[in-house]
Amino acid sequence: MAAEPEALSVGVLNGPNLDLLGRREPAIYGTTTLAEIDARLESLGRELSARVESVQSNGEGELIDAVHRLSERVDGFLVNAAGYTHTSVALLDALLAVDLPFVEVHLSNIHAREEFRQRSLLAPRAIGTIGGFGALGYELGLRALVFHLRRGD
Amino acid sequence: MAAEPEALSVGVLNGPNLDLLGRREPAIYGTTTLAEIDARLESLGRELSARVESVQSNGEGELIDAVHRLSERVDGFLVNAAGYTHTSVALLDALLAVDLPFVEVHLSNIHAREEFRQRSLLAPRAIGTIGGFGALGYELGLRALVFHLRRGD
Amino acid sequence: MAAEPEALSVGVLNGPNLDLLGRREPAIYGTTTLAEIDARLESLGRELSARVESVQSNGEGELIDAVHRLSERVDGFLVNAAGYTHTSVALLDALLAVDLPFVEVHLSNIHAREEFRQRSLLAPRAIGTIGGFGALGYELGLRALVFHLRRGD
Amino acid sequence: MAAEPEALSVGVLNGPNLDLLGRREPAIYGTTTLAEIDARLESLGRELSARVESVQSNGEGELIDAVHRLSERVDGFLVNAAGYTHTSVALLDALLAVDLPFVEVHLSNIHAREEFRQRSLLAPRAIGTIGGFGALGYELGLRALVFHLRRGD
Amino acid sequence: MAAEPEALSVGVLNGPNLDLLGRREPAIYGTTTLAEIDARLESLGRELSARVESVQSNGEGELIDAVHRLSERVDGFLVNAAGYTHTSVALLDALLAVDLPFVEVHLSNIHAREEFRQRSLLAPRAIGTIGGFGALGYELGLRALVFHLRRGD
Amino acid sequence: MAAEPEALSVGVLNGPNLDLLGRREPAIYGTTTLAEIDARLESLGRELSARVESVQSNGEGELIDAVHRLSERVDGFLVNAAGYTHTSVALLDALLAVDLPFVEVHLSNIHAREEFRQRSLLAPRAIGTIGGFGALGYELGLRALVFHLRRGD
Amino acid sequence: MAAEPEALSVGVLNGPNLDLLGRREPAIYGTTTLAEIDARLESLGRELSARVESVQSNGEGELIDAVHRLSERVDGFLVNAAGYTHTSVALLDALLAVDLPFVEVHLSNIHAREEFRQRSLLAPRAIGTIGGFGALGYELGLRALVFHLRRGD
Amino acid sequence: MAAEPEALSVGVLNGPNLDLLGRREPAIYGTTTLAEIDARLESLGRELSARVESVQSNGEGELIDAVHRLSERVDGFLVNAAGYTHTSVALLDALLAVDLPFVEVHLSNIHAREEFRQRSLLAPRAIGTIGGFGALGYELGLRALVFHLRRGD
Amino acid sequence: MAAEPEALSVGVLNGPNLDLLGRREPAIYGTTTLAEIDARLESLGRELSARVESVQSNGEGELIDAVHRLSERVDGFLVNAAGYTHTSVALLDALLAVDLPFVEVHLSNIHAREEFRQRSLLAPRAIGTIGGFGALGYELGLRALVFHLRRGD
Amino acid sequence: MAAEPEALSVGVLNGPNLDLLGRREPAIYGTTTLAEIDARLESLGRELSARVESVQSNGEGELIDAVHRLSERVDGFLVNAAGYTHTSVALLDALLAVDLPFVEVHLSNIHAREEFRQRSLLAPRAIGTIGGFGALGYELGLRALVFHLRRGD
Amino acid sequence: MAAEPEALSVGVLNGPNLDLLGRREPAIYGTTTLAEIDARLESLGRELSARVESVQSNGEGELIDAVHRLSERVDGFLVNAAGYTHTSVALLDALLAVDLPFVEVHLSNIHAREEFRQRSLLAPRAIGTIGGFGALGYELGLRALVFHLRRGD
Amino acid sequence: MAAEPEALSVGVLNGPNLDLLGRREPAIYGTTTLAEIDARLESLGRELSARVESVQSNGEGELIDAVHRLSERVDGFLVNAAGYTHTSVALLDALLAVDLPFVEVHLSNIHAREEFRQRSLLAPRAIGTIGGFGALGYELGLRALVFHLRRGD
Repeated sequence: MAAEPEALSVGVLNGPNLDLLGRREPAIYGTTTLAEIDARLESLGRELSARVESVQSNGEGELIDAVHRLSERVDGFLVNAAGYTHTSVALLDALLAVDLPFVEVHLSNIHAREEFRQRSLLAPRAIGTIGGFGALGYELGLRALVFHLRRGD
Repeated sequence: MAAEPEALSVGVLNGPNLDLLGRREPAIYGTTTLAEIDARLESLGRELSARVESVQSNGEGELIDAVHRLSERVDGFLVNAAGYTHTSVALLDALLAVDLPFVEVHLSNIHAREEFRQRSLLAPRAIGTIGGFGALGYELGLRALVFHLRRGD
Repeated sequence: MAAEPEALSVGVLNGPNLDLLGRREPAIYGTTTLAEIDARLESLGRELSARVESVQSNGEGELIDAVHRLSERVDGFLVNAAGYTHTSVALLDALLAVDLPFVEVHLSNIHAREEFRQRSLLAPRAIGTIGGFGALGYELGLRALVFHLRRGD
Repeated sequence: MAAEPEALSVGVLNGPNLDLLGRREPAIYGTTTLAEIDARLESLGRELSARVESVQSNGEGELIDAVHRLSERVDGFLVNAAGYTHTSVALLDALLAVDLPFVEVHLSNIHAREEFRQRSLLAPRAIGTIGGFGALGYELGLRALVFHLRRGD
Repeated sequence: MAAEPEALSVGVLNGPNLDLLGRREPAIYGTTTLAEIDARLESLGRELSARVESVQSNGEGELIDAVHRLSERVDGFLVNAAGYTHTSVALLDALLAVDLPFVEVHLSNIHAREEFRQRSLLAPRAIGTIGGFGALGYELGLRALVFHLRRGD
Repeated sequence: MAAEPEALSVGVLNGPNLDLLGRREPAIYGTTTLAEIDARLESLGRELSARVESVQSNGEGELIDAVHRLSERVDGFLVNAAGYTHTSVALLDALLAVDLPFVEVHLSNIHAREEFRQRSLLAPRAIGTIGGFGALGYELGLRALVFHLRRGD
Repeated sequence: MAAEPEALSVGVLNGPNLDLLGRREPAIYGTTTLAEIDARLESLGRELSARVESVQSNGEGELIDAVHRLSERVDGFLVNAAGYTHTSVALLDALLAVDLPFVEVHLSNIHAREEFRQRSLLAPRAIGTIGGFGALGYELGLRALVFHLRRGD
Repeated sequence: MAAEPEALSVGVLNGPNLDLLGRREPAIYGTTTLAEIDARLESLGRELSARVESVQSNGEGELIDAVHRLSERVDGFLVNAAGYTHTSVALLDALLAVDLPFVEVHLSNIHAREEFRQRSLLAPRAIGTIGGFGALGYELGLRALVFHLRRGD
Repeated sequence: MAAEPEALSVGVLNGPNLDLLGRREPAIYGTTTLAEIDARLESLGRELSARVESVQSNGEGELIDAVHRLSERVDGFLVNAAGYTHTSVALLDALLAVDLPFVEVHLSNIHAREEFRQRSLLAPRAIGTIGGFGALGYELGLRALVFHLRRGD
Repeated sequence: MAAEPEALSVGVLNGPNLDLLGRREPAIYGTTTLAEIDARLESLGRELSARVESVQSNGEGELIDAVHRLSERVDGFLVNAAGYTHTSVALLDALLAVDLPFVEVHLSNIHAREEFRQRSLLAPRAIGTIGGFGALGYELGLRALVFHLRRGD
Repeated sequence: MAAEPEALSVGVLNGPNLDLLGRREPAIYGTTTLAEIDARLESLGRELSARVESVQSNGEGELIDAVHRLSERVDGFLVNAAGYTHTSVALLDALLAVDLPFVEVHLSNIHAREEFRQRSLLAPRAIGTIGGFGALGYELGLRALVFHLRRGD
Repeated sequence: MAAEPEALSVGVLNGPNLDLLGRREPAIYGTTTLAEIDARLESLGRELSARVESVQSNGEGELIDAVHRLSERVDGFLVNAAGYTHTSVALLDALLAVDLPFVEVHLSNIHAREEFRQRSLLAPRAIGTIGGFGALGYELGLRALVFHLRRGD
């Protein structure tokens, strides 16, 4: 059924301020750094036969550029758009334009936070969403995305 | 670090109409039955050293009774409250009253459905939420719940 | 066109407090009892060659159970969900899950009552709605449902 | 009880675009023309000992004129105000001014359509409403109106 | 003035999760159990010459059944509908259907809690409401209900 | 100050259903007919040296036509748009297009009626509004309009 | 019909900042002072056989006191509550408590001003409202109030 | 436990129009005067070993002054702010500033009245609220306040 | 590609008050009359091989009649519904019923005007909209409509 | 440029409960008393060649009276309306009526507090606003006001 | 009248994801690339004697930079801000700051899409808007902008 | 008390379009350039013993980068986020992530402008806000920030 699962490739998009992960506000966001998350995803990716390519940017336009560029070589996206989750129609449009499936991940449980964090512009167009489990959520999200992409095998 | 992880026990709550799973509307909800999901969770539970106990009911009061009863012997809940997700203050109160952590799971992506399905009364008080990945979501949710419960080991 | 119309079978769902019909608040709800309505529906059903099976419950879960159980042997539902009309996503999901056509009936004109009675969660997914005509509405609803079910004959 | 039911007379008001019925968008509105509906109502009227007089106009003012004029000789109205259902305070006022009971009928299920079609200005002041059953709804509405008018016999 | 006050009888309705009272979350709800509240109400009832009959259920339908059943032998209700306070049109309808006066009681001050707890469907139809005083509120409520029922003596 | 006040001319616009005035619902709208109001306005007009020309129509387009036509020979309008008050952007535009001052009059106190009657599209662009005084309001309105028009004398 | 109209007595309530009338912002509020308005009302009152007693205060409590005090000797009120129009439930309650009819007057057209000026708490309980005609509005209001009070003669 | 309960002192705040109690609108507010309520509270206070000091004012500022002044010698407040309940941030601030517990009382059931009476600015910061029981509510409120103040004995 | 473009025929609908164009409020709407716009459209129509037929009416019903009548001989509509843009469900229904493509045109930029002018009922069902360019907008709209109709050549 | 800056005079308005400043809730509002703020403002006023006159009242009407009275001898106002900030149209009207520039000051950051504290009726008509800096805000506000008043020198 | 129309210069702003035009989602956005649109605009520009300079960026800040830079040498802008249309106050401010007229263009009909796409922050300050006509809209927009700029010739 | 106040360092963030300050729209934003503001802040900084470092960018991501970078060497921020004030959750998150106090400054009074400018995402998390005083606001803001930072000395 999964003779050549090695063909899969996943892009991971990390939005604004995630470069500070693990160094700032550890009480809220934990002590895991983004580099550590990337390492875990690569490791899990190998286990799941999926190549993982991760980018982080604080700029909305740069994240859109990354979606365009990565779309040439990935099969789907794992997206933690951070603050742009709630405001960026343009990033949503980028994901729709390249027409690839994506899974939305959040470190914190956005439903337990401010009103303005509770609407995600991306969620209605995602395969699904995972939130509230800290860095573990990326790993769950990668499992879900790969499962979705492999479903057609 | 996890010398006696076998101590963990997890309750799984399945709300109204989930007894029909796999037999009705397979195009939307897939062909997996609730019995199959239970079997998978038991299997994954063994792998994670967690006993899994599952209940399903179409009645709000019966689900609340189940929360009370199970709370005597579980460490946390995996909850798919289905239609009660959006309306049951009483079920939320039950989960708060027994004061155990819970993870919310949905088969479909509720953000892509009718307006009235987009508010979950449970989500703000859950550890986190997972939705849109079909039956796989239960397994991801069990991983997340066990991870959360073990964090203190 | 209607060689064997006797094949039709209709389930009638009566929600909370309808067991009091005819005995309480006759000024509002009339003096007809639910038993009398059932008798009239059976009589009209015979005229229309449709078997009528009626249930009443004050419990949301029990009504959902009834939808599941009756769905094995009826071709459609006549539904007066009473107070659950405005609040039960779970009952709506039950009707959608069994994938049978249904007609919504109300004794009173809900548009002339409190704000919270004016939204029906069921109506958008019903074939159609009838309200304001008291017990007669059940008979009109049965005619409409049978007409709809026979349309394909 | 109904010694001289022949005394009843019913006005039928058809609002804008209903003159196109049966010729346009048959997939939505069916192939029955307004003339055919009128014929069926006349036939059913004879059965129920009620004279039926039908008007159709695309103009709000003309429909109001018709309410005023017909009110001199009818006992109640069957009203399908079409697009004016949602916007015409003036037509509502006409029906209130002549102080005759009326039944509201819609061909389609307005609760399953656009937001702006879901509010009826007429419904709260009608005896009741019937919608979603196509041309059959007129016949059900006539039965309901005659039943209501005869209740006092 | 109160020659035979012994004729009075009061039903007490306790909604979902109140069976846990005193054992769970004592910091919020106090250490008084429902049994102790029942005992105090009985005692105060004797002082006020009112028989008190108390029920608790986690099920909406069962509470409605209790309203129907108790209505045969009580003069009014003391109602703490807990989580159903905010969502149950059906329970409101039960209280309206049996046409008996009722007083609404809450342990906590619902105006100081989440938005969704601040609307009571019952309150507009109650004699009055009492909230925020813990178990004492039941006693105040019984005084108020008996006073109201006796007013006509 | 008012050497030739005879130059003033006032148009009176009466909207839908006002033709029924005095004959229908006298408890609400009084027993004064529109003809009697016209006569009183003519009489008061003579006293105030203002010619009064009155029209009534049930049609929105006909009222707009009347605004256009009368605008050639009047100095301002007294407007009771009845049901169109709340819905007619087109009638507002007609009054703005002819660029003449107008006074809004209502027979009833619209602030004491249904929600949808409480917004007047005309009021923000009127000189002022008068409502709740029955037929007397027309006379007060004529005084106010003439006063406004004469202010520049 | 009006044998002893001299029996009528009218209280005029002037709210905050109306003491500045005529001296401040004449472009908006005109050059007429409150004393001049009082004089005109007294003069018109004599013509209409009505005694007029006027008060002005910047204090909400003092206006309420005035309503209580004047209610002992007047038959109705002419009220320009100025800024309290939009915010004072207490002043509304005072007018309801003394149970006397009142007419609401505004100098400016509040429908053409800021959003927060467009809701009057008093208007739904007034006989009627007059606004936008400057000082003339008081005179029109007195006519309307006296007409209303005399209607029963 | 309550060796010197005589130390307690309670301030009672009565807002606008309550000076009219018993003399105006007895059908709504009953025939009990404020003086009679004060007498009953003093009597009950003696029974509960609590000194009661009552003030009434129609002025918002005067009520705030009273809160400041009484705060020097009372242990808590019983507050019926009447019309200021719904609008006075300043009175709320006064109660918060003096940092004393208070119980909110209403004569009528505000949830059964106009929309604008259904929000209390004070309620979320009160110990609890009591409403709908007429003058009896003051007595229940005094019991609740004294119970709350004594809880720490 | 466009062998017989002469086959195209376009209906132009002009709503209420557009008959005043060029003569009233030239500062806002310009000095171009509707006759001049018609002449320009005819001229441009000849250039684009499209016959243009223009109607104007102040009546909603007459515009609907025009849609019905013109639909027999045109391929699409250019619609400036003026004041009916924001309120006429009936005109929208007429355009949907005849099932012909249409382009919406406005003289002014409705997004820069009153709130109630910013919702167009027609826009969501139009091919597209053009607004803010005065009379030129009609010419742009004709180009767009003809381009759309020819796209299939 | 500022030859006679001594001509400037500033009124300082302090709303309800500010008389308690420094004595109550020092954790929130600091330990500075209103007298100390007045002293600092006088001192800074001397430095800026501006006479400072300060008033405090708990009464809305008294604050309006103060605006009227002070307006005779000041060039502008520094306003901390406290609880009246959010509710007093009448105080806003007083400031507009005397037509003097004013600066709004708040001790706390109102944007970080309850929803009902986040709307200031005064802010849109102020020169500007300063909030969140405790007593220092008065000094900053005085600097800003004097700067604004001197700009024309 | 247009002696030196060659003086005109127009900037064209293309927002996020428009670089993908013609290559992605051709069913929605057509097969025309941005380069082809630029070529058509240049060609039409030559016909209209207007130089056209086009930029595209996925970054909000870069688009603002472009507005600043181009404003030195263009007479107006043609703007398709894509996803930033609905969210960028900053881009609106850039266009207002350089104080040049602009025309808003959209490829799709935004009124037929998701709720969050239906508000344009730019539209109220644009000359006008054009949407729904695909690439043709740019050409219509250029015509409209040039016409507007030439109007003063 | 302030032995080594020279240790303080303040970052100044200037958002989109502030680079145009002084050159564009001087009627609104004044003639002071950003360079002049920087110079004034440096000068005032020296007076207050605080080093001031200022950045300006039109890009949201670049401003976030600046917050990260400056956070290594400043004690707090003075923030004028211009258009991003109302829309950037990401910039708010940057300020929260670096966990430094900040003061919000606006040149204009945002409460007197468009609706969408009246919500600041930053304000609830700022120490305080200053707006409406033009360039002076920066100086007041620096005073407030330094005062806040020194409070702990």
